[in-house]
Amino acid sequence: MAIVLDGMGGDYAPQIPVKGAVLAAQEFGEKIYLTGPEKLLKRELEKYSYPEKLIEIVDAPDIITMEDKPSYALRKKKNSSIHIGAKLVKDGLADAFVSAGNTGAVMAICTFVLKILPGISRPAITAVLPNLKNKTVLLDVGANVDCKPKLLVEFALMGEAYARYALDVHPPKVGILNIGEEEGKGDELTKETYKLLKKLKEYGFPFFGNAEGRDVYSGKFDVVVCDGFVGNVALKMSESLAKMVLKILKEEVNKHFISKLGAFLLRPALKGLKKRTDYAEWGGAPLLGLNYPVIISHGSSNEIAIKNAILRAIEFKSAAVNEHIQENIEKYIPILKDLL
Amino acid sequence: MAIVLDGMGGDYAPQIPVKGAVLAAQEFGEKIYLTGPEKLLKRELEKYSYPEKLIEIVDAPDIITMEDKPSYALRKKKNSSIHIGAKLVKDGLADAFVSAGNTGAVMAICTFVLKILPGISRPAITAVLPNLKNKTVLLDVGANVDCKPKLLVEFALMGEAYARYALDVHPPKVGILNIGEEEGKGDELTKETYKLLKKLKEYGFPFFGNAEGRDVYSGKFDVVVCDGFVGNVALKMSESLAKMVLKILKEEVNKHFISKLGAFLLRPALKGLKKRTDYAEWGGAPLLGLNYPVIISHGSSNEIAIKNAILRAIEFKSAAVNEHIQENIEKYIPILKDLL
Repeated sequence: MAIVLDGMGGDYAPQIPVKGAVLAAQEFGEKIYLTGPEKLLKRELEKYSYPEKLIEIVDAPDIITMEDKPSYALRKKKNSSIHIGAKLVKDGLADAFVSAGNTGAVMAICTFVLKILPGISRPAITAVLPNLKNKTVLLDVGANVDCKPKLLVEFALMGEAYARYALDVHPPKVGILNIGEEEGKGDELTKETYKLLKKLKEYGFPFFGNAEGRDVYSGKFDVVVCDGFVGNVALKMSESLAKMVLKILKEEVNKHFISKLGAFLLRPALKGLKKRTDYAEWGGAPLLGLNYPVIISHGSSNEIAIKNAILRAIEFKSAAVNEHIQENIEKYIPILKDLL
Repeated sequence: MAIVLDGMGGDYAPQIPVKGAVLAAQEFGEKIYLTGPEKLLKRELEKYSYPEKLIEIVDAPDIITMEDKPSYALRKKKNSSIHIGAKLVKDGLADAFVSAGNTGAVMAICTFVLKILPGISRPAITAVLPNLKNKTVLLDVGANVDCKPKLLVEFALMGEAYARYALDVHPPKVGILNIGEEEGKGDELTKETYKLLKKLKEYGFPFFGNAEGRDVYSGKFDVVVCDGFVGNVALKMSESLAKMVLKILKEEVNKHFISKLGAFLLRPALKGLKKRTDYAEWGGAPLLGLNYPVIISHGSSNEIAIKNAILRAIEFKSAAVNEHIQENIEKYIPILKDLL
């Protein structure tokens, strides 16, 4: 297998992507193509010792900034690390693409180069979140706004295939993010989507009803679908709550000497908490719905996050998620043909 | 001043409401009417010593359960603690109503009895959340779905008046909850609302643009408006994240003896954190947009939350929030008359 890593993606490029690639090569033993300005990447890569055959630089001189609009990046920077990277996958030289770069640009360029899976309308950014038991697959978290019910059904079919095959959950419990549990609750979008997924349940689709906001982290559902506006806002709000709580706790700890000692002694437990909830331990969000696997990482990723994002790409490919999405589409979409 | 407290509201009624009323009477010295089955409330109240003139029971024999549909509670239980309580306010015997009961029933009955403020289309449940600096007023968090831009403008006018006069923020920074900061980002609703609030900014309204999910807890904005579906889901999701993190931390703490000691020593800091972030310290969500102040508390409120909810009701009335909402409506809505 071969994975393309965007060598220029993220807030600390090329240092962090190069470091992540080295770690991944050492740990996973799979081939990694690093895309970006050749000289820059080479100079950075020379700092490390690693299995040399496993990392290959592919020159991509154009640089996309976090400020570039996706459409501009797509049209005007054809030799960017994202564009060249996606082409390597499209041309069959690699199996998956990983980037911590400008999310909008990754979405736009990958959709243009890799094309959307047959039967899917739009790709979806898919957050894989910790919950009390395992993981919750939440999609869409930002690629699509003003979604129609058909789109949420597609998210459900994609998310189900991802949870079942990449996360090995049999069967994954699928829910609709909503403001109440009962059928009939919610806005127009969720009420309509409920009817469609209920229909699919008759044919074996593991739809388990409405998920409230609190169910996302409880582990009651394995897959939760929502409009990308809702998913994005809810995810960012919950991330920022965690940050606020930690910051206030630090301020309070610093007020009392005894608390400082307490915090010191708490370190093993905090390490365990971090292991189970830290973003870097997961590494990246699959972009579901394209013909080839793509993983999008936070711009602020560290090398561990990058390494783990590469692992997610390997899993995505090995688990044949796209083939299983296709099976879901072929099995379930015809059932809804008179309803969509 | 006199406040009506729903004696039968919440998961632990009548015990918790009665205890909260006693605390409030002792601390604030304002008159409290307790509504609910007279004998039941009397028996409970007899357990405490308190300034006897300050708490008066008003008989309301019908009991609304958490399972009752709002429309059913409104039509069939005219002598409920909510209905009788709202009437006391409507009839001028009291100034505000507080309940930890079935949120839908409180909304429906209070809207029916107290009526909507002139110029307002729908009341909004208003969460007042801790942030790194002060408080963020977030509305709507569940009363209205499929909102139109006009409704979000009304939320902004109501939230601004509440933050300015009840929370004493001059001027409060008002934002639209969105998936990006720049103008033009978002879904149809937020893009349209942006145009309207930008227009009002020319006339002095303190609109500060789009707020991302992460801005809710950062303190960058004082008032954030959103569709009630989005607000409800995002709020419940962030509350449940906090619970998950605490639960995992407890599990990890229990794995290591040294961490148990650490957690013990950390108690003063955790107490400080609780003081600054605990729901009970705030007490309740104002229901903005009715002719009289209403405060809705969590069903799981403890007596401290109930006491503080009564304080919020006192503030709401003393600050003349409704009069200031009216001023905002009269000043700003005519400006938009050709745009709405």
